[in-house]
Amino acid sequence: MITVDEALERLFALVKPLDTEEVPLIDAAGRVLARDVTAMRDQPPFAASAMDGYAVRGAEVAPGAIFAVIGEAAAGHAYDGAVDPGQTVRIFTGAPLPKGADRVIIQEDVAREGDRITLGQSPESNDNVRPAGCDFRKGQTMTAPRRLRPADIALLASMNIPFVPVRRKPQVALISTGDELVMPGETPGPDQIIASNTFGLKALLEDHGARARVLPIARDTIRSLETAFDLAQGADLIVTIGGASVGDHDLVGRVAGDLGMDRAFYTVAMRPGKPLMAGRMGDAAMIGLPGNPVSAMVCGHVFVVPMISAMLGLGATPAPRHTARLAAPLPANGPREHYMRARITPRGILAEDRQDSSLLSILAHAEALLVRPVRDPARAAGDQVEYLPL
Amino acid sequence: MITVDEALERLFALVKPLDTEEVPLIDAAGRVLARDVTAMRDQPPFAASAMDGYAVRGAEVAPGAIFAVIGEAAAGHAYDGAVDPGQTVRIFTGAPLPKGADRVIIQEDVAREGDRITLGQSPESNDNVRPAGCDFRKGQTMTAPRRLRPADIALLASMNIPFVPVRRKPQVALISTGDELVMPGETPGPDQIIASNTFGLKALLEDHGARARVLPIARDTIRSLETAFDLAQGADLIVTIGGASVGDHDLVGRVAGDLGMDRAFYTVAMRPGKPLMAGRMGDAAMIGLPGNPVSAMVCGHVFVVPMISAMLGLGATPAPRHTARLAAPLPANGPREHYMRARITPRGILAEDRQDSSLLSILAHAEALLVRPVRDPARAAGDQVEYLPL
Repeated sequence: MITVDEALERLFALVKPLDTEEVPLIDAAGRVLARDVTAMRDQPPFAASAMDGYAVRGAEVAPGAIFAVIGEAAAGHAYDGAVDPGQTVRIFTGAPLPKGADRVIIQEDVAREGDRITLGQSPESNDNVRPAGCDFRKGQTMTAPRRLRPADIALLASMNIPFVPVRRKPQVALISTGDELVMPGETPGPDQIIASNTFGLKALLEDHGARARVLPIARDTIRSLETAFDLAQGADLIVTIGGASVGDHDLVGRVAGDLGMDRAFYTVAMRPGKPLMAGRMGDAAMIGLPGNPVSAMVCGHVFVVPMISAMLGLGATPAPRHTARLAAPLPANGPREHYMRARITPRGILAEDRQDSSLLSILAHAEALLVRPVRDPARAAGDQVEYLPL
Repeated sequence: MITVDEALERLFALVKPLDTEEVPLIDAAGRVLARDVTAMRDQPPFAASAMDGYAVRGAEVAPGAIFAVIGEAAAGHAYDGAVDPGQTVRIFTGAPLPKGADRVIIQEDVAREGDRITLGQSPESNDNVRPAGCDFRKGQTMTAPRRLRPADIALLASMNIPFVPVRRKPQVALISTGDELVMPGETPGPDQIIASNTFGLKALLEDHGARARVLPIARDTIRSLETAFDLAQGADLIVTIGGASVGDHDLVGRVAGDLGMDRAFYTVAMRPGKPLMAGRMGDAAMIGLPGNPVSAMVCGHVFVVPMISAMLGLGATPAPRHTARLAAPLPANGPREHYMRARITPRGILAEDRQDSSLLSILAHAEALLVRPVRDPARAAGDQVEYLPL
């Protein structure tokens, strides 16, 4: 048996960051920035008014001071002249501050009569000016790698970056194997069940930046598995589910080996999801997950999502863990790292009573995988533990 | 001035849950379940082996007991006969348990010679059987509303639900207004800036289940605004950015009113993002956001995302808040609810030093909006506060 971290190291050795492509900014949300991008301009490009009001020379501001209104500046429409002593320009939010002016008196502090304004008795002290470049300067960078969030997209727009260099999305082919499986919508025979893992894994991996294809179910025959691997061509990562251990009915490893996969079997010290197969087949990395629904999804979180992140250039690191207090005590853990389905309650994190790896209904209601380290001693309510959010 | 909660109430009054559509399960991830769905079958549909091993009558298990192997059961291939006393069936994980058998001895506990097996000296006590229906029963429901996560998709597959009733995605039209704006990739004039709000809001609203279109920038003319509203036709929600207050250059409200919008202006007691316009125009709800980049994005989080959630049938509730400890003290807050850009540090949540509503670079690096209630007193490091995650 190897540890989860050792298994991850071997999986990371199978993948590397994918190449870069340029996508329009409008399509860049959620993508991973592949190289630093540089602002094309200062923002704001000029000193700008932060309010609707009157632009004046700050030194002249005094209670009751009077100014002659000589023009107007609006956003997108600068006032071309200069503000001389005793003068003011009507100004609106976002407009460039006219030459000579260095302060904006908000309109609420002003009485206007014709082309003359009189300041109130206590004009506020704020200058209401945004200096040029106060948000960012030309040449300032957004640094890669970075998964682009909505505010990043807004910032890239503001930097005038119409096309964004991002990592290509990892293409994943998902193959479930087994004579017992039929697709949703089909009528299963009396000894059959519905294929669910590929559907759940597609949703999971696409949430993390992959593009996943669900291939037809491979039957427990050499021919059927060969066809499935053939259909997987073009993928960066092939994920098989089921048939990955070394039992009599587990053909996947044999067929993959015959097709040139330099493969390895790992018995990982974890619950659920012990057996794992991994290797490279041509241009693709391959990972074989156990067939139990919960095992497959947990291995998706623990192994496949970090592989996707590594392919996206985000680094070869385990899935980030959070911490929480236990809502109830837990018995000592055995020799395998245990990923317990759990809920986050106001009293803390609470492991579900039923942890069998066949129970998708429990997984669907869980909010976290509570991680019990190998040989973790019994824990009391209130103890701090780590978890992966679901 | 009205409170944020009062503004939200008025906005919720403008929208209602959208109609339902059926989508293929493979496309249902992230969508919102619109009505309860019912399992079409028990899972597992039969008592199944949880391990590779030998199916026996449990009462006969004893150290060194001997059984005759009469057949084999694999996943998808049941053994048709019954297991009589003294008999066993070779069985693999997921296979239906043959009649008569009620326990599976794992292969590691068995010595096999020809068609005979001998149990070891201490066979484990587990029966290694998954009872029929232990995951879920036929008729069991997944209850709506529910935003479908990866494990839900797997569970729906397992329930044999090939098409899923979900809420239609709210169609949002995003209109930025102002003569000062140009699109990313264009060359701005000396008094112009790049439109960024529509790009950031599209990413934000699509993250929350909407489909958003960025319309061409509307200029500060009646004709240009009329064209923009015309292009917005078919939207469930029209979002304008900029020109929503009552200043001299704010035409949006006037044009929307002329086009039949029953509008209201709200001065909301919040920072940033004070002025808000809202109403209904034909079949669409409309909301006008302030033009400052950070104000627009904060109002997107505080007002527009909850409107989208309401349209998706998830209820009319404010954006959910988290709690954290302050990493550093904060001065007393004024008469407006303040959404401070903040980072989550190991020591707690830390408000950024610079909070001006024009600073997109600060927003892009922030991880949270720290919420200061109206007239919140000064707070010390370690005090518990609420925040919206970004």
